[in-house]
Amino acid sequence: MPRYKLTLEYDGTGFCGWQRQEGQFSIQQCLEQAIYAFCRQEAIVYAAGRTDAGVHALGQVAHVDLTKDEEAYTVMQALNAHLRPHAISVLQAEKSSDDFHARFSASKREYIYKIINRRAPLALDCNRAWHVVEPLDAEAMQEAAKVLIGKHDFTSFRATECQAKSPVKTLESIEIMRRGDEIRFSLRAPSFLHHMVRNIVGTLRLAGNGKWNAGDMRHALETRNRSAAGETAPPQGLYLVKVMY
Amino acid sequence: MPRYKLTLEYDGTGFCGWQRQEGQFSIQQCLEQAIYAFCRQEAIVYAAGRTDAGVHALGQVAHVDLTKDEEAYTVMQALNAHLRPHAISVLQAEKSSDDFHARFSASKREYIYKIINRRAPLALDCNRAWHVVEPLDAEAMQEAAKVLIGKHDFTSFRATECQAKSPVKTLESIEIMRRGDEIRFSLRAPSFLHHMVRNIVGTLRLAGNGKWNAGDMRHALETRNRSAAGETAPPQGLYLVKVMY
Repeated sequence: MPRYKLTLEYDGTGFCGWQRQEGQFSIQQCLEQAIYAFCRQEAIVYAAGRTDAGVHALGQVAHVDLTKDEEAYTVMQALNAHLRPHAISVLQAEKSSDDFHARFSASKREYIYKIINRRAPLALDCNRAWHVVEPLDAEAMQEAAKVLIGKHDFTSFRATECQAKSPVKTLESIEIMRRGDEIRFSLRAPSFLHHMVRNIVGTLRLAGNGKWNAGDMRHALETRNRSAAGETAPPQGLYLVKVMY
Repeated sequence: MPRYKLTLEYDGTGFCGWQRQEGQFSIQQCLEQAIYAFCRQEAIVYAAGRTDAGVHALGQVAHVDLTKDEEAYTVMQALNAHLRPHAISVLQAEKSSDDFHARFSASKREYIYKIINRRAPLALDCNRAWHVVEPLDAEAMQEAAKVLIGKHDFTSFRATECQAKSPVKTLESIEIMRRGDEIRFSLRAPSFLHHMVRNIVGTLRLAGNGKWNAGDMRHALETRNRSAAGETAPPQGLYLVKVMY
């Protein structure tokens, strides 16, 4: 059975997240149903990152073994046809080697998080960004964020239900840019803990609104306790942008 | 009665457009209902541009005379509260002079039009952009677009139902930029004819896919007949960005 690597875009609104859950509507289930419609095969699709409910993807990567040996382009077109009208699109399909694994072969992941920082409610971005009303200083957030770069025990930024064996991760970069009302966080690491990006952004809000400085950020990191850091930013501002192999 | 200038953002999806229409759901009606809920007053709201069904706004401007004399900020907050859950947001409210008219006082309007140019369907931008599959050359479109800059009779790019007295308009600028899969058109003019931006973009597609060159574009303009130009691009790619006074 040939293995296919799929690059996916989706709007996470209305989904329970990537992973199949009994009685709920997941990205994985929609893809597996499209594969069934195309191949009459009950396949399992594996993703690089199991995004949470409401989280979007611009370049999620998944793999699947199909009984049909078709041109990759045919697979892409057929899956897109069967995915309608769901907000999931196969941007690219490629044949891959049998030892390629979307999750375990990934060497790097890139996320962005989007805040709209203004008084007025969001009309166009309401499911696509976090609406923060109090003015945030992007430079102060960037300054505090520097503390997190490198290899650290990220227990303070890890969901209590996180199943990773170790809380030690290497955050390669975090860039924070303001453009008008929008503040965009770009984060890159070989891998992330559960809720790690959202917990980092939620905590950086405290640096942005002047409650914390870089020293407070360092203290939160070194305390290695989830309760030492800030809130979890909501899912709708988070986008899985790219997975590298 | 004090006059207020309102700057508005909205997602045009699901609305019949700006203008009130019997038995349909318009931006104007939602705003007038929010004003009624706030002031118990049957006000009429006037907009700078009467956007069509499905067209979005990042910075539409409107004005209204209210019986309540409140701080502009209070008006903004109250209208936003009453506009929920509609995808319309009052970004700013300002008191204006009695002779300010959102439509007739406007000196310049700026629109953007967004194409996503790729094979795969749109998951995130499905109501926010025009999906064009065949490869488009943005530089060729920019070259052809130059023909349209300046003061011309735009009959070829005017909806047949357009009610403007004259088809002569001055297109100040048109810029076309590609960034990845996205092609963004920015157009600026004192005013536009009905469907003018969408007809220009639909015609520039012919330059982008190699069917037309700048000479064909000039010929379409000079023919002064709607049938000499290309198709009308769909509404969901169009955004009213800014109105200047």
